[in-house]
Amino acid sequence: MLLSDKIKHTIRDIYDYPKPGIVFKDITPVLADPALMHEIAARLREDFKNQQLDAIAAVEARGFIFGAILAHELGCRFIPIRKAGKLPYKVKKKEYDLEYGTACIEMHEDAVKPGWRVLVQDDLLATGGTAAAAAELIESVGARVTGFSFIINLSFLPGYETLKKRFHVEPHYLLQY
Amino acid sequence: MLLSDKIKHTIRDIYDYPKPGIVFKDITPVLADPALMHEIAARLREDFKNQQLDAIAAVEARGFIFGAILAHELGCRFIPIRKAGKLPYKVKKKEYDLEYGTACIEMHEDAVKPGWRVLVQDDLLATGGTAAAAAELIESVGARVTGFSFIINLSFLPGYETLKKRFHVEPHYLLQY
Repeated sequence: MLLSDKIKHTIRDIYDYPKPGIVFKDITPVLADPALMHEIAARLREDFKNQQLDAIAAVEARGFIFGAILAHELGCRFIPIRKAGKLPYKVKKKEYDLEYGTACIEMHEDAVKPGWRVLVQDDLLATGGTAAAAAELIESVGARVTGFSFIINLSFLPGYETLKKRFHVEPHYLLQY
Repeated sequence: MLLSDKIKHTIRDIYDYPKPGIVFKDITPVLADPALMHEIAARLREDFKNQQLDAIAAVEARGFIFGAILAHELGCRFIPIRKAGKLPYKVKKKEYDLEYGTACIEMHEDAVKPGWRVLVQDDLLATGGTAAAAAELIESVGARVTGFSFIINLSFLPGYETLKKRFHVEPHYLLQY
C-alpha cells in the first residue's frame, strides 16, 4: 500500500470539530503507530537529505512532533517557534490574521543566522497562515526558507498556492484531501 | 566531557524569567546542537531500551520535542497530552494546582490501554505537578506509569521526591541543578 494511503487509513475523522460542518483530521492514531511513523520519517529523510538544510523550524505544539523527529533524522538544528510569551530570550514576533482576529508567534532572534537554509515543518497545510508567518520570521533575520513540509495538504484551501507564490517553493506533503 | 556537563555548558541561563529572582534554564541552544541531540537520544535509548515500554507520553509543548524523538528511537507509540480544549476526540481531563491557580490537561480516552507500560517524558522536573497530572491521566484508564524521564532535575524543588512517593519509581534525569 502507498504510504499516503496508509496514513489516510490511520487518520481519524472527527466530524463537526472544531465547529459544525468541519471534518477534522486527527493524526494522533498515526503517532500511536510506530511502524508508520518510521516509514514517514524515512520518507521525509529521503526527500530532504540532499537539500543542505541548516535547520528545521516548527510551530508549537503539533509541529514540534514531526519537526523534532525530522531534525533528528537529518542531523539538523531544531528551531522552536512559539505562541507569544513562551520563549524566554529576546524574540522576533509576527502577527498574522486568523479567520476571526489575529494570532502572534515568536522566534528567538538568534535562532537562525543570515544565509541559513531553513525548512518549515508542520503536520497540516490549510490556509498557510501560520507557515507563512513562521517563514517571514525566519526571513526577517536574513535566513532563507528553502522549503515547507507537511504531512497533509487540504487542497480545497489556498495554503499551497499562497506559500508557493510568496516564497517561490513548492510545498512538500505526503497526502492530500 | 560528561554528557551532563556538555548539556550544562550549552543551556542558556535567563535571569529574572519568568519573574524576578528566577534563573530560567533555556534549552533551545541544546535543540540547535544536532551532535548533542544525537548523544542525548542515544543515552535515553540505551537507558530505556530494556523497559518494555508500550508508549511514551509527553505534555505540550516542549515535552513533545524530546518525547517524539525518544518514542521514535525506541519504536514506541507517542501519546500527546495537551492543554484543555486542544485534542479533537473524547478526552480524560485532569486539573492540578499551580503556584497561583490551577491548570488542566487532557488525553484522548483511547490513547493508552489497560496494562500498558508508559513512560512520561518532559524536559524539566521542577515541582512535578504537570508530570504527576499526566501520570494520573494515564493511570486513570488502567495503564501503568513505569517511569519518568527528564533532561533536567531542579533538585532544590520537591518534584523528584513527589513523583517517587506517589508513583513508586525513581525519576530519570540527565543532569541536575
